[in-house]
Amino acid sequence: MTVELIAVGTELLLGNIVNTNAAYLAQQCADLGLSCYYQTVVGDNEGRLMQTLQTALSRSDIVILSGGLGPTQDDLTKEVAARVMGKELQMDAHSRKRLQEYFTRRKIEMTDNNWKQAMVPVGAIVLDNENGTAPGIIMESDDKRVILLPGPPGELVPMFESVVRPYLSRMEPGVIYSQTVKLCGIGESKAETMVADLIAGQDNPTIAPYAKPGEVHLRITARAPGEKEAKKMIKPVVKELKNRFGMNVYTTDTEVTLEQAVVNLLLANHLTVTTAESCTGGLLSAMLTSVPGVSEVFKSGQVTYSNKAKHKLLGVKKPSLDKYGAVSENVAKQMAKGAALSTKADVAVAVTGIAGPDGGSAHKPVGLVYIACSVRGKVKVKEYNFSGNRRKVRENSVTAALTLMRQCILEYYSETTFR
Amino acid sequence: MTVELIAVGTELLLGNIVNTNAAYLAQQCADLGLSCYYQTVVGDNEGRLMQTLQTALSRSDIVILSGGLGPTQDDLTKEVAARVMGKELQMDAHSRKRLQEYFTRRKIEMTDNNWKQAMVPVGAIVLDNENGTAPGIIMESDDKRVILLPGPPGELVPMFESVVRPYLSRMEPGVIYSQTVKLCGIGESKAETMVADLIAGQDNPTIAPYAKPGEVHLRITARAPGEKEAKKMIKPVVKELKNRFGMNVYTTDTEVTLEQAVVNLLLANHLTVTTAESCTGGLLSAMLTSVPGVSEVFKSGQVTYSNKAKHKLLGVKKPSLDKYGAVSENVAKQMAKGAALSTKADVAVAVTGIAGPDGGSAHKPVGLVYIACSVRGKVKVKEYNFSGNRRKVRENSVTAALTLMRQCILEYYSETTFR
Repeated sequence: MTVELIAVGTELLLGNIVNTNAAYLAQQCADLGLSCYYQTVVGDNEGRLMQTLQTALSRSDIVILSGGLGPTQDDLTKEVAARVMGKELQMDAHSRKRLQEYFTRRKIEMTDNNWKQAMVPVGAIVLDNENGTAPGIIMESDDKRVILLPGPPGELVPMFESVVRPYLSRMEPGVIYSQTVKLCGIGESKAETMVADLIAGQDNPTIAPYAKPGEVHLRITARAPGEKEAKKMIKPVVKELKNRFGMNVYTTDTEVTLEQAVVNLLLANHLTVTTAESCTGGLLSAMLTSVPGVSEVFKSGQVTYSNKAKHKLLGVKKPSLDKYGAVSENVAKQMAKGAALSTKADVAVAVTGIAGPDGGSAHKPVGLVYIACSVRGKVKVKEYNFSGNRRKVRENSVTAALTLMRQCILEYYSETTFR
Repeated sequence: MTVELIAVGTELLLGNIVNTNAAYLAQQCADLGLSCYYQTVVGDNEGRLMQTLQTALSRSDIVILSGGLGPTQDDLTKEVAARVMGKELQMDAHSRKRLQEYFTRRKIEMTDNNWKQAMVPVGAIVLDNENGTAPGIIMESDDKRVILLPGPPGELVPMFESVVRPYLSRMEPGVIYSQTVKLCGIGESKAETMVADLIAGQDNPTIAPYAKPGEVHLRITARAPGEKEAKKMIKPVVKELKNRFGMNVYTTDTEVTLEQAVVNLLLANHLTVTTAESCTGGLLSAMLTSVPGVSEVFKSGQVTYSNKAKHKLLGVKKPSLDKYGAVSENVAKQMAKGAALSTKADVAVAVTGIAGPDGGSAHKPVGLVYIACSVRGKVKVKEYNFSGNRRKVRENSVTAALTLMRQCILEYYSETTFR
């Protein structure tokens, strides 16, 4: 079966935002074994949107539209799609009630134009929006499917995962099953080289490497009559990858993120953790606290941006700050030790670096970052040289800190040292 | 004049990469006053690419294709485009020489398929690639232009800036100029209602509202013979929007974000700031420290996740925690006061709430958040009821905290109270 993606929005045509929804939906559809040959972006314009949808329906079995479901006059995706599919719009009592509750709960005045969002095509499947006001819509005809999703990724992604993915997976006989082996502490090209022989001769299952900042994901995908058979085909590949990558594998569970893996490791070993951040300014603690249940192990963290704060809150010695500078191996170590001491946490991680755009020098350029991790008094510190802008340096620092924490905890228990 | 973008590449259709080229090219074209109504992604497939290009040329004056110019068999953008434009390919001596030099300089053995990249359509304008091997191509007919650019952004962007942008800027006499009025503390539908009369009758300039979590952006766009005239047309609209939205306007500068506006306000008033975060876990301080130059005003912040940390680090009274709970107006206030006291910062903002998925109750549901802000001892606290998952609740809390900080600082100086 073929699928086609249409993103609706003037802000995409003007280049104000990047079409990350298309990449997300395309990857999901590929996973589901649906072939996607076209992606289109079109503005909030009735005539052009109608023509684009008609063309898409003439050549693809399923068309997924995103965006243009909001309350404003601009938003006309639902109206146009209903017309193309020959359906009338009617008020949906369930959606109307949800809308009302949404505004009541948030204590926001509801303007009249919002009711528009509760209008749905007759006979359509209505998808509740758990993260916004506009419901999603699925319209079916004899041989075509039109799926309308809200534009904001924070609404589109959860709606796709909870409802649309299961819906689409029932359309193709046989299943496509994927599992991801996730690596940290290894570069993309090295990882690729290490699986080049497996990729060269592959047919089913296949291995596809994806790079994320500081991580490499190896996605194994099998096609089989049933999930059980697919899983059976994937199992030996996962085993082989674990053999090859050893400790660099932080999870073989597609759903688990690096921060979750680190929090799981802390929980499993009953280790409390604290953070002492300079250049990342709270991004590391924000990442750790994004994991539900982290409160068992994370009690407090500190952002010590100024030298004074590093001295006062973490006990970093003033002469060290003068002699080595705030961005140094020595100060990173003292920050981790000080944080462990003041909070009595088992694990303390400290980040200090130059995120830019200013503050760099020939000797200490932008991107230079030191990260220290203390596990029950055993401290390790590493130097990093990241490239890219302020955001990139900070993001890479957070991933590196998580990777180092994981490594230090594993080393503490295994009493072996690895790269 | 109209322009249309076609990105060629299977990796885009599979969702392996995000189409950042489209956003870049779209923004550049909008800047140049070219209207872009369609963007398409198509794979390295001869038939589909040819059809897509023919459709684009039937409705747009200029078509920019990116990707598919490389040396492999897959790469067929140039061949297809030349056929559609009725041109033969021939070896270009200049490009051939450059290719040879490129490989010699890098000491890489040159495989035979690379010569393909020096083949260009007869009569085409050849654009040297300073960052790769495939040259760009411009083909002209009586009334159409087809521009071929290499896919990697590191090659496409410099080529566009140095050659294509000047080429295109000569084609359209007028310019399009945009300015954005950014609002916080007001919902999208309410904002839209307040400008419905302006939008209803608009022609040039136009106003388009965009919603971001907790923010609304109103983009005003004018077409005029020159930038000066366009700015002059936009000026009264900005003035009218400022009249209507008053204190909800946090900037009229397209480049300024809410966190930047807040940091600018702190800098302008020489106010230092500190954060005390529970449910946001460092996300608010991370947002503030994403702004370069924030170190002038932000010295330290605290993440007090546990009750013990709230008591020990911020001096929140234990009986209050027992009586009102950590998620309460009372505790939020004490957190802000305590943070101000311990750090001596002029402004202290505290966030405490239930981000979920666990921890909610009928009385205190997931999404309930209290934010307190103290400006030199004057404390204000607000209750929020956010919907959505953990990530959404945390993101909305950060935007609300920035909005409240801005409001409290402005009230402190104006001695007036507003919603």
